[in-house]
Amino acid sequence: MSERNSLSDLDIARQADIRPIGDIAATAGINAEALELYGRYKAKVDPARLDAPAPAGKVVLVSAMSPTPAGEGKSTTTVGLADSLARAGHKVMIALREPSLGPILGMKGGATGGGYSQVLPMDEINLHFTGDFHAVTSANNALMALVDNHIYQGNELNIDPRRMTFKRVLDMNDRSLREVVIGLGGPAQGVPRQDGFDITVASEIMAVFCLATDLADLRDRLGKITFGYTYDRAPVTVADLGVQGALTLLLKEAIKPNLVQTIAGTPALVHGGPFANIAHGCNSLIATQTARRLADIVVTEAGFGADLGAEKYMDIKARLADVAPSAVVVVATVRALKMHGGVAKDKLTAPDLEALLAGVDNLRRHLRNVEKFGVTPVVAINRFATDTQEELDWLLEWCATEGVEAAVADVWGRGGGGDGGDELAAKVAAVLSAPNSFRHLYSLDLPVEEKIMSIVQEIYGADGVDFSVPALKRLADIKKNGWAGLPVCMAKTQYSFSDDASRLGAPKGFTIHVRDLIPKTGAGFIVALTGAVMTMPGLPPVPAAMRMDVDDAGNPVGLS
Amino acid sequence: MSERNSLSDLDIARQADIRPIGDIAATAGINAEALELYGRYKAKVDPARLDAPAPAGKVVLVSAMSPTPAGEGKSTTTVGLADSLARAGHKVMIALREPSLGPILGMKGGATGGGYSQVLPMDEINLHFTGDFHAVTSANNALMALVDNHIYQGNELNIDPRRMTFKRVLDMNDRSLREVVIGLGGPAQGVPRQDGFDITVASEIMAVFCLATDLADLRDRLGKITFGYTYDRAPVTVADLGVQGALTLLLKEAIKPNLVQTIAGTPALVHGGPFANIAHGCNSLIATQTARRLADIVVTEAGFGADLGAEKYMDIKARLADVAPSAVVVVATVRALKMHGGVAKDKLTAPDLEALLAGVDNLRRHLRNVEKFGVTPVVAINRFATDTQEELDWLLEWCATEGVEAAVADVWGRGGGGDGGDELAAKVAAVLSAPNSFRHLYSLDLPVEEKIMSIVQEIYGADGVDFSVPALKRLADIKKNGWAGLPVCMAKTQYSFSDDASRLGAPKGFTIHVRDLIPKTGAGFIVALTGAVMTMPGLPPVPAAMRMDVDDAGNPVGLS
Repeated sequence: MSERNSLSDLDIARQADIRPIGDIAATAGINAEALELYGRYKAKVDPARLDAPAPAGKVVLVSAMSPTPAGEGKSTTTVGLADSLARAGHKVMIALREPSLGPILGMKGGATGGGYSQVLPMDEINLHFTGDFHAVTSANNALMALVDNHIYQGNELNIDPRRMTFKRVLDMNDRSLREVVIGLGGPAQGVPRQDGFDITVASEIMAVFCLATDLADLRDRLGKITFGYTYDRAPVTVADLGVQGALTLLLKEAIKPNLVQTIAGTPALVHGGPFANIAHGCNSLIATQTARRLADIVVTEAGFGADLGAEKYMDIKARLADVAPSAVVVVATVRALKMHGGVAKDKLTAPDLEALLAGVDNLRRHLRNVEKFGVTPVVAINRFATDTQEELDWLLEWCATEGVEAAVADVWGRGGGGDGGDELAAKVAAVLSAPNSFRHLYSLDLPVEEKIMSIVQEIYGADGVDFSVPALKRLADIKKNGWAGLPVCMAKTQYSFSDDASRLGAPKGFTIHVRDLIPKTGAGFIVALTGAVMTMPGLPPVPAAMRMDVDDAGNPVGLS
Repeated sequence: MSERNSLSDLDIARQADIRPIGDIAATAGINAEALELYGRYKAKVDPARLDAPAPAGKVVLVSAMSPTPAGEGKSTTTVGLADSLARAGHKVMIALREPSLGPILGMKGGATGGGYSQVLPMDEINLHFTGDFHAVTSANNALMALVDNHIYQGNELNIDPRRMTFKRVLDMNDRSLREVVIGLGGPAQGVPRQDGFDITVASEIMAVFCLATDLADLRDRLGKITFGYTYDRAPVTVADLGVQGALTLLLKEAIKPNLVQTIAGTPALVHGGPFANIAHGCNSLIATQTARRLADIVVTEAGFGADLGAEKYMDIKARLADVAPSAVVVVATVRALKMHGGVAKDKLTAPDLEALLAGVDNLRRHLRNVEKFGVTPVVAINRFATDTQEELDWLLEWCATEGVEAAVADVWGRGGGGDGGDELAAKVAAVLSAPNSFRHLYSLDLPVEEKIMSIVQEIYGADGVDFSVPALKRLADIKKNGWAGLPVCMAKTQYSFSDDASRLGAPKGFTIHVRDLIPKTGAGFIVALTGAVMTMPGLPPVPAAMRMDVDDAGNPVGLS
């Protein structure tokens, strides 16, 4: 076991022996014609020029139990597991989301794995990377400028400014922009209306970007986005406005996946990053498929716990292409189990076997859920320095009793390039070579309310679902407008199986309250909102930006 | 003379024989360590790693007479002249501004020269390029999110939300955002205040970006930006908030100049793009200086006519480093001269010698102005297909009478790589080898009102200047706050020497009305506003975006 030392993630990343990205690409089998360098250590891969067979690699989906607010280390485990699989001789590629700049300036300081399991160059990936999010921001805001201009210039489409469902976005944590009034200042400055800004990762264009199968499909999906309604309450789409071509043009370079490397030199495609609440929360389909053309095993991640991220991966993303996972890794930590067992957040580092026992029901429900999709789960116990051997042994023993493969991983401290993930990799590889029989949870033919019912009953363990009056009205609209065949994207707290973040463990006897339904006709899903969902975060009293700087040599300071 | 054919700029650009940017860099003498590729045809050049001598190249500044709304072809002339100088055996580099995305989606469709005098790849440069403007947008909006968060979290700095002088920005033509109210929605959503958005090129951070001498100076200037005032009316700076480090971090890659090539293969640094009204309107100082390290002749451009762009180049940019021009090219067109001679805009293509004679006073005043800086002007007559030989001959003759070198250039139709600019290049080269004695128009020690007086009298030909009551109050504040030693940046219509766009030719007997003064303490100048200045453009009834698309092969459509 390694002690977590005093080096920051940025320190470790900068000490790493990073290789020119062209070397990584060559090793990954990417032909020069398909590679477009962005600086020394980043590149875009053009799937249309890639000389590689059709997608065939097996997918390992990294998910988690219901997390603590600090997170259980899914990205770190994804990176470390891939490094360990590579170390064992497999041809591996990682597919991960791109970090959002807003939270980096706010709380997090960085989002590219941690310790010795990071993707590099962490500073560039965490800041502007190759500009994909900026392209999404531009496309989103171009759409809204064009919409408001259409209204200003005479409103031929009869758009009702009070029924707009699409907002402008910034990749920034900026609470002051949540609710605004625009178009003030008189007749020359536009038409006043109530509006608001979301963070870029909440844009439907980000979701579209991540679900498109190619450039033509991207264009088609952009055209299908409903941005508002007419005074007659008919939906108005981007295609009605005629600007899907311009939006596609703004995204044509961004849509190519970004190649980077881990500290251990494993190739990683880091591309796209939709929210895990009002969207599906995983990297672009194009990146996953590109990775499946190049590698035998693709390790990827879905946001939040398995009740949200994994379910959406299975029921939304895996309907669009053959990307169903052959194994699901469920990341668990001793500290999260103790939290679910009733321990206060400031006491999670103290040894407490009883709390582990009390909290493990949460993990059990996630594992049983994964099996409902016909996929075998593997538990990755992400080790922390404060974990005792007794606690780890107990948890391994519990997994064995449950009939689930499990391994302790120290990919943060020792790295997957070291021996920190060898055992986990061996267990995952064994599951990959066994047969499985993937299935979606529900049929798209079911009415929307029944799709929601199957998720809340079978995955969350709820008794049922309660629709608010607005949600019932929206259900009727969805049927009327012909959108009832879309899958459902649940927006629920990640901290509980219920829609109440304080109900930890494996709650029973609860109802899920759907307060509204939002049709995302471009992305191709119906968002079911349960409780309040924050689509524009705020900054904390002392933002991470206060610590950030550039040293005299031009190197970054304060990303961690 | 070439007929302007039916090929669009995009068609011509796509037919061009573009070379890998590494080849261009090698020819330009850029060592591999200093080059960071961005795709196949774009690269960033890191001045800190550049193995080249100190800046020594001579600068040719391309400016213009007072233009028509369509523009007189300064960028096209800049590109073509550089190509012609290269064709004549000179070691040449271009330094140009980056285009702004907003106007491209609105009116223009592209801003990288035209015809056979373009920088390539025109589609990428016109869309997201290497993301510099996105980085400026991010830094600007990070600052404002941090400011509003500071107010929300307790407002330790005592910032008066009613006296904020800094806005959020988007690189978009979005009139609905000109005047907004933010922070609505109750105590959890921030503090309500009146606000607005500018286009990114109007951000003071863009001006700072373009005037910084290096990364340390960038950080220093960012810290000096005044974003508002306290309740006690004391200025509050970015350094007071303590986030100049974070803003520098967000700009550390963007600040490296971008290398591209012309159709003829001449290397061009295209970098930065401040407004020419409320800012100084030329590419980054770092790009100009980098070009001067690599080439014997640097051809660069300043926005608007010579009364604005050239004056600001001389009195703002050329005070920060040794970038004073050794020659100034004044672009003139037969059509613009006729417009100044009283011809209606829809009649400019009809031959009209009398109108030429009546309009040429405008050109004369610009030429005499250039000489006031101790620099020799050269007239570039940018040829249009509708110009008659008689008109061109008359204009050449007139220039000879005035004692000014002049040449007809057809760099649009024949290209500088062809013979379209040979004569112009020869005249410019001759001026470059003659001595000159550059001087600024005014001393920084003069009071602000006297600096303004010298510009309006000596350059504009006005009788004097009239300050509004608010401007007079601001003058007192400027003195009180110790900013009186800064140079002045005039914000005036480009269409007239006066502040009334309809007064064409060389008006006399007028007064310049300064309605407000805006201290830009980071950029280091005082903006003098005359008349209304639009800092957030709107979209036209049929935006250029309506024509834009991607074809089946992924190629851009509708940029022109």
